[in-house]
Parts: sequence; structure tokens; C-alpha cells
Amino acid sequence: MPIRKPVLDPPFNIVRASHVVFDVRDLGASRAFYVDCLGYLVTAESKDALYLRAVEERNHHSIVLRRASAPQVEALGFKVASEDDLDRAAAWFKRKGLPVSFPEVPHQGRTLRTRDPLGMPLDFYARMDQAESMLRKYATHVGARIQRIDHLNCFTPDVQASYDFYCDLGFRLTEYTETDDPDPKLWAVWMHRKGNVHDLAFTNGAGPRLHHIGVWTASALDILHICDVMASSGFLANMERGPGRHGISNAFFLYTRDPDGHRVELFTSDYLTVDPDHEPLRWSLRDPQRQTLWGHPAPKSWFEEGSPFIDTPVRAPVLEAQPIVAR
Amino acid sequence: MPIRKPVLDPPFNIVRASHVVFDVRDLGASRAFYVDCLGYLVTAESKDALYLRAVEERNHHSIVLRRASAPQVEALGFKVASEDDLDRAAAWFKRKGLPVSFPEVPHQGRTLRTRDPLGMPLDFYARMDQAESMLRKYATHVGARIQRIDHLNCFTPDVQASYDFYCDLGFRLTEYTETDDPDPKLWAVWMHRKGNVHDLAFTNGAGPRLHHIGVWTASALDILHICDVMASSGFLANMERGPGRHGISNAFFLYTRDPDGHRVELFTSDYLTVDPDHEPLRWSLRDPQRQTLWGHPAPKSWFEEGSPFIDTPVRAPVLEAQPIVAR
Amino acid sequence: MPIRKPVLDPPFNIVRASHVVFDVRDLGASRAFYVDCLGYLVTAESKDALYLRAVEERNHHSIVLRRASAPQVEALGFKVASEDDLDRAAAWFKRKGLPVSFPEVPHQGRTLRTRDPLGMPLDFYARMDQAESMLRKYATHVGARIQRIDHLNCFTPDVQASYDFYCDLGFRLTEYTETDDPDPKLWAVWMHRKGNVHDLAFTNGAGPRLHHIGVWTASALDILHICDVMASSGFLANMERGPGRHGISNAFFLYTRDPDGHRVELFTSDYLTVDPDHEPLRWSLRDPQRQTLWGHPAPKSWFEEGSPFIDTPVRAPVLEAQPIVAR
Amino acid sequence: MPIRKPVLDPPFNIVRASHVVFDVRDLGASRAFYVDCLGYLVTAESKDALYLRAVEERNHHSIVLRRASAPQVEALGFKVASEDDLDRAAAWFKRKGLPVSFPEVPHQGRTLRTRDPLGMPLDFYARMDQAESMLRKYATHVGARIQRIDHLNCFTPDVQASYDFYCDLGFRLTEYTETDDPDPKLWAVWMHRKGNVHDLAFTNGAGPRLHHIGVWTASALDILHICDVMASSGFLANMERGPGRHGISNAFFLYTRDPDGHRVELFTSDYLTVDPDHEPLRWSLRDPQRQTLWGHPAPKSWFEEGSPFIDTPVRAPVLEAQPIVAR
Repeated sequence: MPIRKPVLDPPFNIVRASHVVFDVRDLGASRAFYVDCLGYLVTAESKDALYLRAVEERNHHSIVLRRASAPQVEALGFKVASEDDLDRAAAWFKRKGLPVSFPEVPHQGRTLRTRDPLGMPLDFYARMDQAESMLRKYATHVGARIQRIDHLNCFTPDVQASYDFYCDLGFRLTEYTETDDPDPKLWAVWMHRKGNVHDLAFTNGAGPRLHHIGVWTASALDILHICDVMASSGFLANMERGPGRHGISNAFFLYTRDPDGHRVELFTSDYLTVDPDHEPLRWSLRDPQRQTLWGHPAPKSWFEEGSPFIDTPVRAPVLEAQPIVAR
Repeated sequence: MPIRKPVLDPPFNIVRASHVVFDVRDLGASRAFYVDCLGYLVTAESKDALYLRAVEERNHHSIVLRRASAPQVEALGFKVASEDDLDRAAAWFKRKGLPVSFPEVPHQGRTLRTRDPLGMPLDFYARMDQAESMLRKYATHVGARIQRIDHLNCFTPDVQASYDFYCDLGFRLTEYTETDDPDPKLWAVWMHRKGNVHDLAFTNGAGPRLHHIGVWTASALDILHICDVMASSGFLANMERGPGRHGISNAFFLYTRDPDGHRVELFTSDYLTVDPDHEPLRWSLRDPQRQTLWGHPAPKSWFEEGSPFIDTPVRAPVLEAQPIVAR
Repeated sequence: MPIRKPVLDPPFNIVRASHVVFDVRDLGASRAFYVDCLGYLVTAESKDALYLRAVEERNHHSIVLRRASAPQVEALGFKVASEDDLDRAAAWFKRKGLPVSFPEVPHQGRTLRTRDPLGMPLDFYARMDQAESMLRKYATHVGARIQRIDHLNCFTPDVQASYDFYCDLGFRLTEYTETDDPDPKLWAVWMHRKGNVHDLAFTNGAGPRLHHIGVWTASALDILHICDVMASSGFLANMERGPGRHGISNAFFLYTRDPDGHRVELFTSDYLTVDPDHEPLRWSLRDPQRQTLWGHPAPKSWFEEGSPFIDTPVRAPVLEAQPIVAR
Repeated sequence: MPIRKPVLDPPFNIVRASHVVFDVRDLGASRAFYVDCLGYLVTAESKDALYLRAVEERNHHSIVLRRASAPQVEALGFKVASEDDLDRAAAWFKRKGLPVSFPEVPHQGRTLRTRDPLGMPLDFYARMDQAESMLRKYATHVGARIQRIDHLNCFTPDVQASYDFYCDLGFRLTEYTETDDPDPKLWAVWMHRKGNVHDLAFTNGAGPRLHHIGVWTASALDILHICDVMASSGFLANMERGPGRHGISNAFFLYTRDPDGHRVELFTSDYLTVDPDHEPLRWSLRDPQRQTLWGHPAPKSWFEEGSPFIDTPVRAPVLEAQPIVAR
């Protein structure tokens, strides 16, 4: 039985998944995708970086794009509740023998940079510059009218190891996929801190790599509209999968790829999970509706491609099991 | 019994309500309202006029704004099926002793300018310059994403007279309001040529005056969004009534006023009426759900204000009956 | 150049596509699909037949299901403007050497039964029993909240021949697909009488067979909801294609198959086409966005399967050209 | 300055607003409203009580209706994180000199019954019977397709006192209204535990009384649909205010009254507030868009009427300030 009870008193208090730092090759091309097409707001911009936020976000950035020679993910950002939590986190990671540093990070307060045991680069911070929420300036809501960042979804070579690590940090399981063996193996997990289906998810695969960031829209019609916009304004090739409905998390989704191949899921309509006795939902790896309620197959790229993390070797997964592709 | 059978072989073939020509005092202010806020597309622009169309329209214009010293309506425009229909129309209006001329009208073919017996200025034409439909260029759909012009709604001092005149021209009744007298009087009529609830409607009141033009959106959510935009970008005072649902025509609506007070109804979701045996729907003047299914009162301005027609005296209505304001 | 000018004075006045008569093997199974799942209203029911209408329809039926030993289509129904039109139609079909009879048809007035030159069975009538419109009885709107029937879409072995025949009857072309030869061939046509994209469409293929009936919903969200309902209540296998957006007609669509394989397209958001000078939109057979704006491939069944017409041999198509399947 | 820093280490851990217990005079009438019209699911039913939940809720009930001779509120229910929290809560309330008991409550684990200093009856519990989530059984989503309970909104005679009490319990302020005095007074507060705008809100007025419970829908279109349903199936008089948009909380709302006058707000689209440094949003009491972004006046009943709490005297408010009613 690979599933454990939630840890309700974690060593430090992570509030939520907060942002991602993407290396991209051409900031102009990225701007066309994120700002002109999807409608992201620009909080700050230099010749080397672009800081983006969505319409309800007061945090200075939820996506940082940095000019680089090759696409990769520099960091997954998480907000902690206080500066004390940051110190507790640093001490904890040190005790685990994991790397700890406090680099200067623009627009953020003290930032703890570390890695999880599988190698994923993590940034923790308690304070970030605040920007004006544009939620009630509706004339600025364009493109997909994205509201906020929601989650980070990663390939891991060892789902059980990733699950155990983040479970210890207080991430609570909401849904999971396992094999149907007498001795079942975890194939994928969805875990949250903020009270909906997930802040962080892991799927069995060559990793660690980022599968996608998930961003929230207020209505499914916003997602249908951006499909029309993308398909008719030169971004058809950036539409990878969807729109559709996942069985898992109940999400209505569209998966897009940015000009560097980083994957951005636009989604809406999951559910509240704050109850400590919220029972995780189990899916069989062989249930096709897990992936796609309506029966649409996902493309091969969706199962295989992901963004590498900076200076992080990719390992083959410990499980060979493969999900049943719908139909 | 004031209702007649539809005239299925009218003297000439009117296709639909096509456009309106508004006199406005400040083209810049009008542009801010129609283009920047509502999202109308500009087909042509000069220092004296602005030609607008909505996203699915191939006709060069459905709203013409002309710079003038005072707000008024220069013409209500209707498309006829052919040049022959235009000649038949000219002959017919002449026989009725109504004024007939063929002024040069930019971007239109031959244009018959006339008036109905109550004085409303009418432009008929068969050909207009065609522009590219932007329906499939979704990135250009902004603001309320208005699709097309739908109808013209007027105050008339004599609903029966207006009804009779347009009935003769082949307009078919779909819904009507009458008094509950033993000898009922028509209080309002909705009449169509193109196959939905109306191209032209009349309500009892000081007139003739234009009450509003009605324009179509693809979704009620487009109307909710433009409410948010208007309320948060300086156009709150331009929101006159709604959003709400009419009993009549099943329309989900928002009534706006442009900077000169011309009224524009954004609406969606009426129904198909092409069947020649389509039975008109009767409403009692005393039924409050006629006006407003959900029970919201309309403001006084909505009942009383309208746009004057050029060189057209306004007469008091023949009926004194007043509708019951909801609640 | 296979495209002709519209015939504006046809030999008789067809108002619109009105209904279909499906033979089905199990009325209970059909009822579960159409009524319990999709939300159709039952106007009349016997042990041998089920008469269905959608929420805005006043006509007694738009779908007739008849108990039979094998699935097939008994008739495609069209409403004409008057009894005189019915007589003109009968005379016209006789002159063409096509079969003419006036069978008794329940709930309809005089009904002309005939066939087009390719063998498709056609029913014309001017009067049908009227039922109460349920449009304003919103509590009865369930399932997909289907509003009305919109169109009939058929495979034909000879698109040019079908186009020419219905063009003579006054059907006007709105969109078409042709080959890119120097001497282009018609591959598919969309034609209307009622003022939107189509009442009748033809695609090159083994035929004549019915490809699908198209029914209208008021919102794309109604279609997303019925996807969720079908996928979670035993109708997943009945979802054949979509939801998605056609380039052609701008339709947001879902194709379903009833328990006998008859195909029903739920769709919304096409556009107005009443202008006689409305220019048809040409698509190249090689343009993948024609079929599917967002790039989703259609399943093989969608290209190949259709409902046979009663006593109507199926012929191979004259063209061998095949559309490019997206991606 | 009446606003304090959030208390991040409260004496016990309240998870969220969980349910309400309404006394009603006629369970049949209540069932018609909540179940047949709004679409609530019935988890359990007896001749004296009805237990209701919404489609995503696994908790046995979020609304309990109890047969009684007069309408009132028996309890506001809150979930705490654990049985230990319940004991800590009991100890804490005792120390404050507030009443503490542990009555048997059907379908709940140990339940602490107490009152706040102003007299509001509170039930705390950690465990409730769990029912199957119907979230993915979409065919059961009818009426307004309500997803879950969201918040409880109360009149208090002393907003500052209520705010101070619940601030001590860890409720965090997200938005507030105050007077424009040099020495500003709190007029209304919105406070949360679960990470969106509120679990609990207070407005200055004769109290304590319940103003409304707020329940969440996935889409604004669900709210428009239930408006149509209510207005056309005998529930027009139960529609008290809206649909509309609040400036506060960004909610799209409809206020309904159940057959006993208990107020239920259907709403959607607020925002995430989990960040501990989330800055509360201040509104001036004189800002009309606070209440109603689109400028619609609220009816007098909305400002004045509320549900009394069991055995709880109502006191006049300490502030006499009145909000500006829009327009």
C-alpha cells in the first residue's frame, strides 16, 4: 500500500506553487506567445528577462522568461508562509544533505535555492514585490483571460520517491493512479497545499523533467476562444492537446506549447480539497477515462516530451507500465 | 382584432434591416465607445464620418457615424434583394405620395431615400461595398465580440398605423402586445423579414423616434464581460438597463447609450421564425414578464428617451395606456 | 467553374429543412438516447413510433423514430410555404420524371413524397400539427437543451449533380470545397433556404446516404455539458467526434451516433446568410482547417459511415479525391 | 485604524464554513425550492428533516432543513482539522465564558455547540459522514448545478467586535468597508480560512442575524439559467436581487429567498487568497461600485431582512452610517 496519511504538521509551511523560471531562446517570440496571444500581463521587462503575471495575481510574477541559448527550467517557485519558514526550510534541506543557497533574485525577498532528492531545482521565498491586481480592470483581460497560476506537473523516474518526499513536506494527496498488481505501484500523484486538486503532480516517466505548468481560467469559454485565436493567428502548431475533460481533477483543459516547447495547460473547474479527511481518489492505470473523459487520444508528444531542469540529469523511470491510451 | 395575416407576396423584396446612420457630436468620443469599448471594426474613417461593422458582417457598414452639431438619426437602412426591387420600391412609395430620391451614398450602390407615412427616414439599397468577414480571424474579436446588426426598434405615435404599413411591405409579425380591452389596441409589435424575431419593432410613444438598434452577440457571457468592462473603464453611465432577460423574444439583453444618447441593445438568443404559419405570440400589456422575465424594473429613461429622426416632428401617441413596470 | 448564380425565383418555395424519419430497431433504446440523455421532448408516442421536438420548436416533430427491423432513413422532410407550393412541387417533380405520391402522414397536412434524381427520399408539406413552444418553460430544458433542427447533411456519389438539382430548387450556396485542379471539381457544398449556413449539405462519397442531421444549441457550454453527461452515463461510445470547431460554417460541434448509428450533430454559432449577394466561401480540398480548425483528426467512421435511405441503392462516388485529414 | 494583522497561529484550526441548519415550516415547500428548483441532492430525509449537499460535496450535508413552527437558524457549522482541535476549541470557548456543550448531532462526529460573544450559535466538528461525490456523475447536475457551499454572511450590531473575535480565531481579512471619517469605523468585513475571499462575512445591521449563505456554481451561465427557471416555474418572487456583479469579491451573484425567507446567494468567480501577505482590499462606504459594479440598486429587503438565530436577541447596530445605494 503505497499511500500514506497526510502530514498535517510539516517541518515548514509551504503555501502554494507560485511561479516558474523558463529559459527561452527568443524573448520576442515568447512575448508574442504569452502576452500577445494568451494575454499575460507584463510586470517588468529587460533585454534578458520578461516577468509575467495573470489578471488576479498580485505577486510580481508567476512566469519568468530568461533569455538563454537552450530551453530549460531554472527553478520551480514555491511561496512559504514566513521568513521563519524559510529558515526552517533551509535547516531541513541541509539536514537531508541537499544543496542550500540564498542567491539574489530580482523582485523577490530572501530566496532559498535547493533541490529535491531527485534533482528538481526549487526556489522558496516568503516575500515578493506586489503589483496591482488587474482583476477588476476588465478591459485588460484579453486572450485567454488567465486568472492565476495553479500548479506544476512533473515527470519523475520514481513516483513513490517523489510522493514520499513531498508528503513529508505537507503536500496532501487528492488523486492518484496505480497499477492493478496485487502489490500496486504508484504511477501518478496529484498533491496540494492550497486547497484545490494540486500544486504539484508527478507522473512516471524519464525525469525529473517539467511536464507542464497549469494556469487557471474563469470559464471553459475562455479556453474555447483561445483555441479559435491560436488556430487562426499562427499558433495552431502550439496547440498540443485538447480542449477536453480529464477524469482526473475534473479539469477542462487545453495543452499548449510555447515557442521553446515549454508546456502550458490552460484549465478550469476542479474542486475544493481543504478538508483534512478528504479521501484521495484512486484511478486504475487501465482506466481510459482517467486521462480523457471524452475518449480523445493524447498525442505521443504529450506522453514523452518535457522541459529539462537546469544541470539535472534525466533518468529512466523505475516502472515500465504504460497507461492505456483512450480508444 | 388589429392583427392581420402576413403578406407573403409584398410589392418589393426587403431582405433585412441593414444599418443605421447616426449624427454624433464628437467622432472621437463615439470611436472610444463603439470601437475601443464595444469592439466594433472600422471599415472606413474620415474627419466627418466613421463606418463600422461587426465581426461576421461582409457589408461595408452596419453603423455610420456622421459628425454633426446635434444627435439625430439620418436614416434607417434596409437591404432589398435586387436593383429591380429598388425600382419597384421607388414606384410604390411614389404611388403612396411619399418622397422619393436617389442621393449619392458612399460605399453603397443606388440608394432610394424615402419616408414612411409617419415620417421615419428610410434608405433602401441592393448593393453595398463588401469587406472581408472577420468571423474566422478570432484575434480581432474584442470587447463584446458583436457578430452583426439584428434589428431597429422605434417609438411610433400610432402602432396600428406603423404595423399596417410594414405588414403591407411583407414584414411578418412574431410577437405583439395589446391592451386587454374588449376592443384591444396594439401597443407594440415585433416584425421580421430575415427569419428571426425581428428586423423592425414599434412601441407606443411620442414619435416617430428611434428607440434602439439591436446587435447580436454569440454568447450571454460576451454581454456579462462587456458589463464588467464598461463599469470599470469609464462607461458605467452608458449602461442603461440590464443585463436581463426579456419575456418578449426570449432575448438576453444589455441596453447601452452611446455618447450622444443613441441606444444600442446588445442581445442574444431569440429563435427561428421562417415558417409562414408561425403563429404570433400575444402579450397582455399588463403582463410584467413581457418586459422583464426576471422582474427587474426598467429605468424611466428607457421608457421615455429616444433618438429623433432628421427633420421629423414628434407627435404624442394615440394611446395613453402605459405598461406595468415590473414589480 | 462548377458554381452557378443562385436561383432567386425557384419553381416552388421551400422554407427549410424540417425533419427526418429514422427507422430504428429498439424504440426504448432510442428514447434513452434522444429523450433521457439529449433532452428531446416527446410530442407523441405509440408502440411503433416516437415523435420528438426540441425546445423552441412549435412543429409537432423534427425527429420521427419508427420501429423497424433495420436502421435506415425513410424520408428527409422539408416545409414549403403553402399548399400551392406543394402542388407546384408535385407538378415540377412529375415533369422531371420523378415519383410523386401523397401518402397519409400522421400529424402532417398533405404530404408530397418523392425522390431527387440521385434517389434521396423527400417529403414536402406545408402544414404540420403545432405544439406548444417550450422555449420559455426553462425548467424543461435538460440534457443538451437542444433548440431546433438546423440541417441535413448527405453523402452523394455526384456532388455536382446534387448541387445543380438543389440550386434549381432555390437552395443557395454558402460554402464549398473543391479540388485544386485547373478544372476544379466540387467536393462538398453547403446550401441554405432559411438564411444561415445550411439546410442541406452534400459531400462526395458512396451514396446517397444521410451523413447526419444537425441540431442547434444556444451555447457551446451546452455541448460541453452533454459531453460530460454522455461520457459518464453509458453513452461514451455514442460520442464519435468533437467537441471541436469546423473552419467550414464556423460551427462548434459534437457528432454523436444514436443506438442505430444514425448520426446527430449538436452545433452552435454559424452566421447569417440572407443577403442575395452573399458570396460563397471557397475551401481547398487540401486545406486541413476546413474540417477542423483546431487540428483534431476525425475518426475513419466519420468519413465512411452513413445511414442508408429506404429502397435506395448506394453508388460509388464519381470523384476519388480524398480530403487531407488534419495533422 | 481598526484593521489588525492576521493571526497565523490560532488557538485551534478551523478549516472552513461547512453547513447551516435552517428551521423551516414546510419541508415539502423547502424541498420544491432546494431540490426540484435549485438542484440540491438529498443525502437523507425524514419527516422532520432534510439533509442536502451539492454536486462536489462529500460531506453528508451542507444544508440541514428542520421542520419547525417558525423560520430561524439553529446553527452555523464549521469544520475543524481534528478531534484535538475540537477539544482545544471547547477549552478556549470555556475560558472566554461562552457556553459549551456536545449534543448528539446526526451524521456528524463529536460536535461542539457554542456561541460567539454576540450570540451567534456555532457548531464545530471534525468528522461528518461522507457521501459519494457526484461531481463526475454529470447527469445528476440539474437546476443551478451548485458545486458546494462557500460562505456564511451575517448582520452584526458591532462589526469591530465580530471582526476582532474571528480574527483571533485565525480568520483572515480579504476585503473590508469602512467609513471615511478621520477615525474610520469598520462597516463590513470579509474573512476566510479556506483560501478564497470568505468563509464568514459581517455587515453592520440589526443583529446578530444571518444575512445569507453563499453557494458556488461553476459558471455564470448556470446562474442565468436558474434565473430563467425560477422566473418561469413559480419562483419569481424568490428572486430577490441580481444577477449582477459585486465590486467586493468580484462575485457574479444571484440572491434568492427560500420559502421561509432564508437567503441563498448563488455566486461564482472570486479569487485565491492563500498568501499570508495578501493585502486586504479597502472600500469606502461611499463607493457605490462596492455593492454593485454595474450600478443596479439592491432592494430594501436585501439591506434589512435576515434570518434570526435561535434564542438570540437582536440588537440595534452601533453604527448609524448607511451605504450609498447605487444610482
